[in-house]
Amino acid sequence: MELIAKEEIEQRISSFQLVLAEADLDGAFILQNMDMFYFAGTIQASVLFIPREGSPVLMVQKAWERAQRESPLEKVVRIKNHSQVVHVLRDFGINILETAGLEMDVLPVNIYFGYRKGFPQCRWVDISGEIRRLRMIKSPYEIDQIRLAAVILNKGFTEIGELIREGMTELEIDGWLALIARRGGHMGILRMRGWNQEMTHAHVLSGESGSEISFLNSPHGGTGNTPAMAQGAGNRIIRQNEPIGIDYGVAVNGYTGDQFRTFVIGNLSKTLEKAHDCSRDIHRLLAKEVKPGFCCADIYNLAVGEAANKGYGEFFMGHGEGHVKFIGHGIGLEIDEYPIIAPRSEDKMEIGMVVAIEPKFVFPGIGVVGLEDDYLVTPSGLERLTLTDQILMQVHK
Amino acid sequence: MELIAKEEIEQRISSFQLVLAEADLDGAFILQNMDMFYFAGTIQASVLFIPREGSPVLMVQKAWERAQRESPLEKVVRIKNHSQVVHVLRDFGINILETAGLEMDVLPVNIYFGYRKGFPQCRWVDISGEIRRLRMIKSPYEIDQIRLAAVILNKGFTEIGELIREGMTELEIDGWLALIARRGGHMGILRMRGWNQEMTHAHVLSGESGSEISFLNSPHGGTGNTPAMAQGAGNRIIRQNEPIGIDYGVAVNGYTGDQFRTFVIGNLSKTLEKAHDCSRDIHRLLAKEVKPGFCCADIYNLAVGEAANKGYGEFFMGHGEGHVKFIGHGIGLEIDEYPIIAPRSEDKMEIGMVVAIEPKFVFPGIGVVGLEDDYLVTPSGLERLTLTDQILMQVHK
Repeated sequence: MELIAKEEIEQRISSFQLVLAEADLDGAFILQNMDMFYFAGTIQASVLFIPREGSPVLMVQKAWERAQRESPLEKVVRIKNHSQVVHVLRDFGINILETAGLEMDVLPVNIYFGYRKGFPQCRWVDISGEIRRLRMIKSPYEIDQIRLAAVILNKGFTEIGELIREGMTELEIDGWLALIARRGGHMGILRMRGWNQEMTHAHVLSGESGSEISFLNSPHGGTGNTPAMAQGAGNRIIRQNEPIGIDYGVAVNGYTGDQFRTFVIGNLSKTLEKAHDCSRDIHRLLAKEVKPGFCCADIYNLAVGEAANKGYGEFFMGHGEGHVKFIGHGIGLEIDEYPIIAPRSEDKMEIGMVVAIEPKFVFPGIGVVGLEDDYLVTPSGLERLTLTDQILMQVHK
Repeated sequence: MELIAKEEIEQRISSFQLVLAEADLDGAFILQNMDMFYFAGTIQASVLFIPREGSPVLMVQKAWERAQRESPLEKVVRIKNHSQVVHVLRDFGINILETAGLEMDVLPVNIYFGYRKGFPQCRWVDISGEIRRLRMIKSPYEIDQIRLAAVILNKGFTEIGELIREGMTELEIDGWLALIARRGGHMGILRMRGWNQEMTHAHVLSGESGSEISFLNSPHGGTGNTPAMAQGAGNRIIRQNEPIGIDYGVAVNGYTGDQFRTFVIGNLSKTLEKAHDCSRDIHRLLAKEVKPGFCCADIYNLAVGEAANKGYGEFFMGHGEGHVKFIGHGIGLEIDEYPIIAPRSEDKMEIGMVVAIEPKFVFPGIGVVGLEDDYLVTPSGLERLTLTDQILMQVHK
């Protein structure tokens, strides 16, 4: 089992401590699984306190011994419940907290009330944006994990191309993608940070399923097989000459790869083929143009402009109510990481960002076509992390 | 696609309105996916306001047309963001909210702040416990969905018994379970309500993996294949004559079945076999004794007593730090539903409850054995919903 290196965690903590100092906070409580994993290397049930200066304290409620094995942090203590946090910090010489950060974008209200009660004099500040901005820039170790995810995705796209047959259901293909992912080492879950957002390893969307709109913040939703899921594969039977959009995600050591390929048994219609070519052209354009320092809004506009030039602007990134205002997003421990490549984003491309760029075209009642690839921002521009060279995945009848 | 019947939703709303009246609240905002699904029949991105009297208002942010198809509610309106909620309610004649409920066990702090700002005069009350108590009693429709989940689980346990071979990894078996589940109609996700709790379709825990403790509120955790997941199947290779614990969950139309079987290629040791027999005996004892009105704490004590009588008390429901203080839990739209069959629970068995009872024995460094079955509380006692008759799943070498 691969553990996070001590230096990696130390680097993250010290970067965060600069943020704490700049925000004039005494420290921050880290409670959510992925932020915890980022700063402590473990998700065993814990409270992590990171002071502005000095060593963090990891207070573990369950699986204390395991947390000690997994985390390179030095101060790892056992607690029975959150109410002991006050006393533990006092033991470490932290008597009064005047201002402290919390992950208010995800933290449930009742837990927040508990902390307010435990530290009645403290002023609480939302620190989630700062954490997400730190996590936006990936270390070489983190990039390597996303490269490993790309290996599994490439294997999956190749193998599923051999398996897809007319008459199979979307659900069956989804099941095979799960098996291939797990056999390849996918850790079993994909995480989204957004409230009420959920994701599994795949969307398998054939024909008109690809134009079914859902609650998901994505250009395609899919029917699912029940309104209780309302996304992804459903009972629809795959036919010839229709687009089969497969959005496929796997995670290695926490880090997600997120890619999309359009499959077809036979041929796409001329319109869909041209729209699909346009998706490829947008990738080529961005891969050529985008360099560090390039603004997200400008990247968005480049993509939208290319789609409009080719005459497919109306279908770009969803149709009607399903239209979403982004063409890409950061990936890492969560799928919905910063930066968001959106019209109002002033974020600039920075070396070490990893983004999934997903120009897709949704034709109502017909389906979705497109191409999503993962890229690393390097000093010379975008490096494609996707290993699947094939663009349109044509399956023999 | 099966939708929730109007009568089903109306019944739930009117039960909840009695709760609102009793708590003296003007209404409640329902925001979390599963509570939303329970009261509105849809999870399209929405805000649901249920007034103490009169019709609920479903305000949909994304997939408005789909929400209208999925929900039998009559007042379904479109909003751009949460800040419009105040105006929409005013249009429906709701001008002042003095006291209102929110799901404070799951609702993120920032969303809570938004409502506090939008309704500055309102006193906010946590209504999550009341919602969970309503959801605890299942309707005939809901019970039917859990019966359908049991059909898939039975198929899965049978098929995986044919597939398991010495030399396979836990991950591979997990992958096959995913394929079987999806082919059978599993909706693709299992949901937990608890903060930071997560679950996939299976735990596959062979040999000592079964005694690996995790953050999960469960007697077994498993290694997973990374500390970023820290539960479930890992890279361990399955061997002969060791316990292979499989906890398997699937959901149909939102409703989860959750069962556990112990597999073995060859034979268990005498100790493990006897502990496994004890798990079976606890099921038999509870199936015989438990009737409506029976207190959860008493059921817990009956099980603990039986385990102690047979000499396995030390290993019952986890060992050492991994010991959990419950022997069962409600299942439904979430896996961690009420009632919790725990030593301090004063909840009584009520007709219509569905519980997963999971007496398991964890032997450090050796593994986990046991049996988890799902039961419906009927007027005459516990009705087993599990369809898998085989108790110990012996696989031919």
